Amino acid sequence: MGSPEATSFSSQKLLFRQLFEKDSSTYTYLLADVSHPDRPALLIDPVDKTVDRDLSLIQELRLNLLYAMNTHVHADHVTGTGLIKSKVPSVKSVISKASGSKADLLIESGDKILFGNLFLEVRATPGHTMGCVTYVTGDGADQPQPRMAFTGDTLLIRGCGRTDFQGGSSQQLYKSVHSQIFTLPKETLVYPAHDYKGFTVSTVGEESLYNPRLTKNEETFKGIMKNLNLAYPKMIDVAVPANMVCGLQDTDIN
Amino acid sequence: MGSPEATSFSSQKLLFRQLFEKDSSTYTYLLADVSHPDRPALLIDPVDKTVDRDLSLIQELRLNLLYAMNTHVHADHVTGTGLIKSKVPSVKSVISKASGSKADLLIESGDKILFGNLFLEVRATPGHTMGCVTYVTGDGADQPQPRMAFTGDTLLIRGCGRTDFQGGSSQQLYKSVHSQIFTLPKETLVYPAHDYKGFTVSTVGEESLYNPRLTKNEETFKGIMKNLNLAYPKMIDVAVPANMVCGLQDTDIN
Ligand SMILES: [Fe+2]
Ligand SMILES: [Fe+2]
Repeated sequence: MGSPEATSFSSQKLLFRQLFEKDSSTYTYLLADVSHPDRPALLIDPVDKTVDRDLSLIQELRLNLLYAMNTHVHADHVTGTGLIKSKVPSVKSVISKASGSKADLLIESGDKILFGNLFLEVRATPGHTMGCVTYVTGDGADQPQPRMAFTGDTLLIRGCGRTDFQGGSSQQLYKSVHSQIFTLPKETLVYPAHDYKGFTVSTVGEESLYNPRLTKNEETFKGIMKNLNLAYPKMIDVAVPANMVCGLQDTDIN
Repeated sequence: MGSPEATSFSSQKLLFRQLFEKDSSTYTYLLADVSHPDRPALLIDPVDKTVDRDLSLIQELRLNLLYAMNTHVHADHVTGTGLIKSKVPSVKSVISKASGSKADLLIESGDKILFGNLFLEVRATPGHTMGCVTYVTGDGADQPQPRMAFTGDTLLIRGCGRTDFQGGSSQQLYKSVHSQIFTLPKETLVYPAHDYKGFTVSTVGEESLYNPRLTKNEETFKGIMKNLNLAYPKMIDVAVPANMVCGLQDTDIN
């Protein structure tokens, strides 16, 4: 049987797939080091509804899933982490310590998450929630070029996450984006947790020029966020308690 | 003002964006040669509803749109080609001669579509409709690696287009995929016109191993296609006549 390889970007190592869940317009990301004999892989922001799709793809691509990670405690959908762990018990759930959630691995700013010879670096980017992080592919000639930033709801394409729930703060979000994301090389690819207009990717350069909110000064930004008048999130009362334990089904960590 | 660059894959030249239209689950693709001073660009399978999004992105990225191309006469949505031409009159519409449609450029198997120092090669892949083509990025060290195949509805991710309308033929589709697509290098990226499960890309290697239809022998494949019992496409009576002239608004070519 042949090997269904897909290397992308200038890295001959990284297999990368962006996956979409239509109901919540969520992007899940699959990354793997296919140059490593173990073919280690991780998922960022899996959704409960699409776990079967994701695991079947992982099996077909002959990957070895190490981590099911979340950028933050989502309020709009239930994470797939718990369900994944119930189906593949060796997988470790990952979320930030600052989120106050339970998981196998509680990560902090500066931590590195290794998969084969590739790694993700953790940047704390609070503001949408108090525990939001951005995962950024490693810096170095042996890491994917351009770098890729998985920004969760901190920075969306031409937008950003709301800041009126879950310990959110517009001031913090503004600081997070400007100090932790816009300081990355401008060709860095921005992969958000959601998109509602059909965009799949942006870049740091593009968002720092054209993001209608984050290009404003801090006071204007705070005013915009204060006056959004968004509805109470439909799924928050179901999703947040479930996601605080990395998925309803995740009963083995407590 | 800075340059919002995004190079992807191993090419330092290609700017590539995949764009999604939710109602018809259609993918539109933007390709541009950003190493060329003119920054020439093309769109594959634009949708009428998302023309404003696409043109505004093209403007922000400072691209010069040359071509609005279709892989075939779509039955499920109205092409954006006509609307694009009405807004940017210099753009040329492109479709296959075999489609029987009107357009500025009627292309045939073997034709090359140049944009800067990059090009797409045309492969005739009839079967879903009689005029379907697959656009494949050029072969050569100065072209994107791995190659990218824009397969329209000929080959979908783990599926294929229906063959019971518009001069469709399951026998032809089978032959098209096996002779024109599965013969490409197995790492070739497969970018279809639609996906209904949230997949964004596959590879020739992956589809030739795991496509549940096209991995069967020809007789079994024809049986599968004969017994799909699909509903009459909702939009076909509006979309096909419009798309035969590259979009309802495309009144300047006749
Ligand atoms: Fe969120
Ligand atoms: Fe079609």
